[in-house]
Amino acid sequence: MSNSESSKRDDVSSSQSSSAGEPQTDSPSILPSIMGEIGFIGLGRMGAAMAANLVAARRPVIAYVRRKEQIEQLKPLGISATTDMGDLLDCQLVISMLPDDDALRQVVMGSKDDHLAGLAAGLMPGAIHLSMSTISTACAAQLSLEHTRHGQGYVAAPVFGNPDAAKARQLFIVAAGAAADVVRCQPIFDCLGQRTFVVGADQREANLIKLLGNMMTATTLEMLAETIAVLRKRGLDPQPFLEIMTSTMFGGRAHRIYGDKIVRQTYAPGFMLPLVLKDVRLALAEAENAGSPMPSVGVVRDRLITAIARGYGDLDWSVLGQIAAEEAGLAPLQQPLAK
Amino acid sequence: MSNSESSKRDDVSSSQSSSAGEPQTDSPSILPSIMGEIGFIGLGRMGAAMAANLVAARRPVIAYVRRKEQIEQLKPLGISATTDMGDLLDCQLVISMLPDDDALRQVVMGSKDDHLAGLAAGLMPGAIHLSMSTISTACAAQLSLEHTRHGQGYVAAPVFGNPDAAKARQLFIVAAGAAADVVRCQPIFDCLGQRTFVVGADQREANLIKLLGNMMTATTLEMLAETIAVLRKRGLDPQPFLEIMTSTMFGGRAHRIYGDKIVRQTYAPGFMLPLVLKDVRLALAEAENAGSPMPSVGVVRDRLITAIARGYGDLDWSVLGQIAAEEAGLAPLQQPLAK
Amino acid sequence: MSNSESSKRDDVSSSQSSSAGEPQTDSPSILPSIMGEIGFIGLGRMGAAMAANLVAARRPVIAYVRRKEQIEQLKPLGISATTDMGDLLDCQLVISMLPDDDALRQVVMGSKDDHLAGLAAGLMPGAIHLSMSTISTACAAQLSLEHTRHGQGYVAAPVFGNPDAAKARQLFIVAAGAAADVVRCQPIFDCLGQRTFVVGADQREANLIKLLGNMMTATTLEMLAETIAVLRKRGLDPQPFLEIMTSTMFGGRAHRIYGDKIVRQTYAPGFMLPLVLKDVRLALAEAENAGSPMPSVGVVRDRLITAIARGYGDLDWSVLGQIAAEEAGLAPLQQPLAK
Amino acid sequence: MSNSESSKRDDVSSSQSSSAGEPQTDSPSILPSIMGEIGFIGLGRMGAAMAANLVAARRPVIAYVRRKEQIEQLKPLGISATTDMGDLLDCQLVISMLPDDDALRQVVMGSKDDHLAGLAAGLMPGAIHLSMSTISTACAAQLSLEHTRHGQGYVAAPVFGNPDAAKARQLFIVAAGAAADVVRCQPIFDCLGQRTFVVGADQREANLIKLLGNMMTATTLEMLAETIAVLRKRGLDPQPFLEIMTSTMFGGRAHRIYGDKIVRQTYAPGFMLPLVLKDVRLALAEAENAGSPMPSVGVVRDRLITAIARGYGDLDWSVLGQIAAEEAGLAPLQQPLAK
Repeated sequence: MSNSESSKRDDVSSSQSSSAGEPQTDSPSILPSIMGEIGFIGLGRMGAAMAANLVAARRPVIAYVRRKEQIEQLKPLGISATTDMGDLLDCQLVISMLPDDDALRQVVMGSKDDHLAGLAAGLMPGAIHLSMSTISTACAAQLSLEHTRHGQGYVAAPVFGNPDAAKARQLFIVAAGAAADVVRCQPIFDCLGQRTFVVGADQREANLIKLLGNMMTATTLEMLAETIAVLRKRGLDPQPFLEIMTSTMFGGRAHRIYGDKIVRQTYAPGFMLPLVLKDVRLALAEAENAGSPMPSVGVVRDRLITAIARGYGDLDWSVLGQIAAEEAGLAPLQQPLAK
Repeated sequence: MSNSESSKRDDVSSSQSSSAGEPQTDSPSILPSIMGEIGFIGLGRMGAAMAANLVAARRPVIAYVRRKEQIEQLKPLGISATTDMGDLLDCQLVISMLPDDDALRQVVMGSKDDHLAGLAAGLMPGAIHLSMSTISTACAAQLSLEHTRHGQGYVAAPVFGNPDAAKARQLFIVAAGAAADVVRCQPIFDCLGQRTFVVGADQREANLIKLLGNMMTATTLEMLAETIAVLRKRGLDPQPFLEIMTSTMFGGRAHRIYGDKIVRQTYAPGFMLPLVLKDVRLALAEAENAGSPMPSVGVVRDRLITAIARGYGDLDWSVLGQIAAEEAGLAPLQQPLAK
Repeated sequence: MSNSESSKRDDVSSSQSSSAGEPQTDSPSILPSIMGEIGFIGLGRMGAAMAANLVAARRPVIAYVRRKEQIEQLKPLGISATTDMGDLLDCQLVISMLPDDDALRQVVMGSKDDHLAGLAAGLMPGAIHLSMSTISTACAAQLSLEHTRHGQGYVAAPVFGNPDAAKARQLFIVAAGAAADVVRCQPIFDCLGQRTFVVGADQREANLIKLLGNMMTATTLEMLAETIAVLRKRGLDPQPFLEIMTSTMFGGRAHRIYGDKIVRQTYAPGFMLPLVLKDVRLALAEAENAGSPMPSVGVVRDRLITAIARGYGDLDWSVLGQIAAEEAGLAPLQQPLAK
Repeated sequence: MSNSESSKRDDVSSSQSSSAGEPQTDSPSILPSIMGEIGFIGLGRMGAAMAANLVAARRPVIAYVRRKEQIEQLKPLGISATTDMGDLLDCQLVISMLPDDDALRQVVMGSKDDHLAGLAAGLMPGAIHLSMSTISTACAAQLSLEHTRHGQGYVAAPVFGNPDAAKARQLFIVAAGAAADVVRCQPIFDCLGQRTFVVGADQREANLIKLLGNMMTATTLEMLAETIAVLRKRGLDPQPFLEIMTSTMFGGRAHRIYGDKIVRQTYAPGFMLPLVLKDVRLALAEAENAGSPMPSVGVVRDRLITAIARGYGDLDWSVLGQIAAEEAGLAPLQQPLAK
């Protein structure tokens, strides 16, 4: 997983989105453009928004779903769907957006129990699997190897952003894979996000950056929560504190978005706690495997467990603000499960 | 310490600096402007830079110093100095910039051992003590009371920024005190910083915001350190990760400045560890008094203790990056005490 | 996983070992005694000592080993061995002592890659699998179910004690399973340990108690390490402190054994760090699944990661004493890998 | 604070109590026995029990109290009391048992506000101040110096044990001071405790051992709380787990006493949380001064703050069991303030 070639600042190449609906034309002409239908697996809140944006950009999509009723649900978004994964196997590109390692492994390697063949065995040589899920680096390495054995490409391209950002094509994409494969995916990235960061050939690096980035946000939420709880216990309005912080040292998106949520005590569903805890688990495992402890993440982990145990699992991770308040003896939410 | 009146966003009034050397003239005419020499106590790296900026703005300064040789050292900066605190007692405004509660208390309350009278006993009624040190809220409350008893004003105005920012008049100032006193200080703030946030009448609030703000930065340093150590242990260049973070969710000053220092492993003296640990101690005591735990700050506390124990006490707090690396088994600094 | 029946103190039935070599005769006569050879899988340091004790108690053992050369190595201990697991399938009792969930699962469920049939498919109905490994409760539940499907018994009986204790028949055994199965195993327990605690029918409970018990010891080691490091940094001999502790509030085995190791700074291999970290991982996962955080264990986890990263992985978990010393700036071990 | 002389195990000399009421007669005849009334300062729950035991051993006591009504309250215990500290200044021995550094400092150094002269200025040369409070090492050093300047002895002798143990003369005493002074105090120790550990000449060592010992117990409580909460969340009775632990690795007093309290969820007042938090604060300050972090104690600190914030401040420190349960989502106490 060497990265020596990207030690200079400009080695993270980044491309701004071109305008919607207009596939980029400046890819090296030698590489064949992605043509025909794009396969899509994982039509949750994130995936459905992303697939709809592809359709809006005149990129036809064929989605694989598990339950028949989902086919009808996707029609209004212009997305064709099938319950037979075999219908995706002629695609030059298949995008996956799944909740965890196991779900993705099953899609790629197949599953005897479900009589699924798996993408690796089924896709044509030269096809690309564009894997946008948040997964472990071990899983990324395994799937990359499997696709390579079948002469296919595997591009890791996890994203930063919630479903609203996905809808608004405001995702940030971190991409890694064989250079030629990444270049062929670039027009697709331009339909999905506001900016793509290409970090090199090793797919694991993209997944690791995504996990560590989520931990940066999680610990930021925790620290905002801790400071705001202190202010509340002192009888002070936390708003001036937040305004001073975001006007001086912490003007970035994370502090502004989540600071505001915690100050206003609004924890409407967004990034829900069980999924956050899954990412924390993956990140701590990566840290353990790397031999590098992350005690700050341990703090978040414990508070997430408490939050879920108290019935806040359906809320956004900004509910860490509520947990910090409760650790300071302030009252619990009255109807944690109401949305 | 009620703050109910500042629950609306615009209650943090903020004023941009006017151009250098030009005292603001728009203060309510009814309030007498600060005239004559400004007293200055605490001529360390921060204080000396600030006093020099006052002189440059045609505000004469009389500084109190402990040792005679300091008088000569301050001359090139245009600062008159004295070893007799009595020479400051006719000033309408005295600024203090001292390292801790005890030093400041001694200056205000006097000290029998040193035969010092103390500002409270010595200043004229109506004079203002502008206290810019990072101190506890308990100390702020005590000194405010003492000055009130003597008919004097006490304005708390701690600052965000290092000595370089002080020199460049780029400090952020958080001010609290009686409204009339704060208005009279505003022209002075305009000579010292780029922006002033007025948070109300209770001086303690300004000091608490300052301490919590420093904890925000300290935990940010720690988390950057932890993530970058994981990347290094995986054999990856941390630069692309940092660039992606600061281009997406963490575009603020703290992440850009300190992320860069940790990636480049440059820990030249700036905010030195014993002073950081003092602020951590004060912040944890405030949290304890408020009845609101801050476990993320506990993590930083332990790593600072380790850093000082390993001989890194003279370095900048960005050396938390080095401690995270050592917790991951990477090599210690060869010459920690060299600067 | 109900445990209502064991809510009274005396519900943990405990049996003292009878004298060696004399199988207990007071089991209900209705239950057939275990006859013939006892199968044994997992002949590591623990397993080999335990199997040797069975042989010494005139209980013939047939051990399954992976490599042919192990057969010769076990002969001096009086243990017959085979590389064909099929040779164990006629046994009325098979004991397993394996390092982790995966190894045990493979033994019970079989493995296509290795053309292994697996105990569940191969043992006779009525036979008992006595599982003495430290594993997760999820694995215990899965294996119990699998054996039940095949009409076999599954008794969980993890042990407290290191290889020296195993040799000396000083293990403590925590047993759970169907009452009849546990009773049949009791004569075996009497050959292996000094005392058996029967905690009920649910095998998971025995495994959970074992994992939590190990965490009790791990956090004890950590706290001894932290206090002793403080004393050392103050230039004090830690021996009087330890003596006072163990003479007053902490007279138990853990504090006496491990306190002495940490004071004497002897970390010779015993319970090696990667295995400790595995148990920590399992315990934290149990806590997460139960929805109950264990922050004290998080502290140990981070220090174990650091210890392994510094090359101390081959040493005993008492090396946490060394890590605490290094966090206090004391010198690292000169030859961490020497034993 | 050298301790080189006590590096051999038997350097902690320990004396068993002789039978009650019978002063030891084997002290070196060259040292004058303590004669006449013994002064006692600090008649709280601990102090009153200890003073009563002195009286019961035919050692007359003259107690200094702040409020007149206390004089009557102490009469039934056979304790003479006075509100004039001057009445204690002829004593050859004065015992103090006070809540914190400040209270003790005031007693020794005097207080202008209260027109108190202070023990150091008032006691006769050759008299001994036997300081049994739990205080910081810095305070111990300061008071020792002050008494030395006045030709008096200062013996530090903090105790392990709660008020019930004090009543039953079951305290453990850790004593340090000039050898001759300690020997003269030994008959007094024999009236108060079951065993005395003499750790050397430096008084600070006794106080440090006391603080670290309390941290050992605090972290033990926390870990018992964490494990028992996991078992409860799994629907298991924690009693078998505790019984197994105390029967195997953790047979000491702390685990038996406090494990039982946490399992039975009885948190009746004993060692109340604000005093525990004071000791935690002192211990963390000692660790910080020594340059040796104690992260396990940080965990306890945060949970104590939460417990007090939730209204459990009047309960025993075993209420850490309740906090761990609440962190796992279990219900809060219905009437935390009821006793």
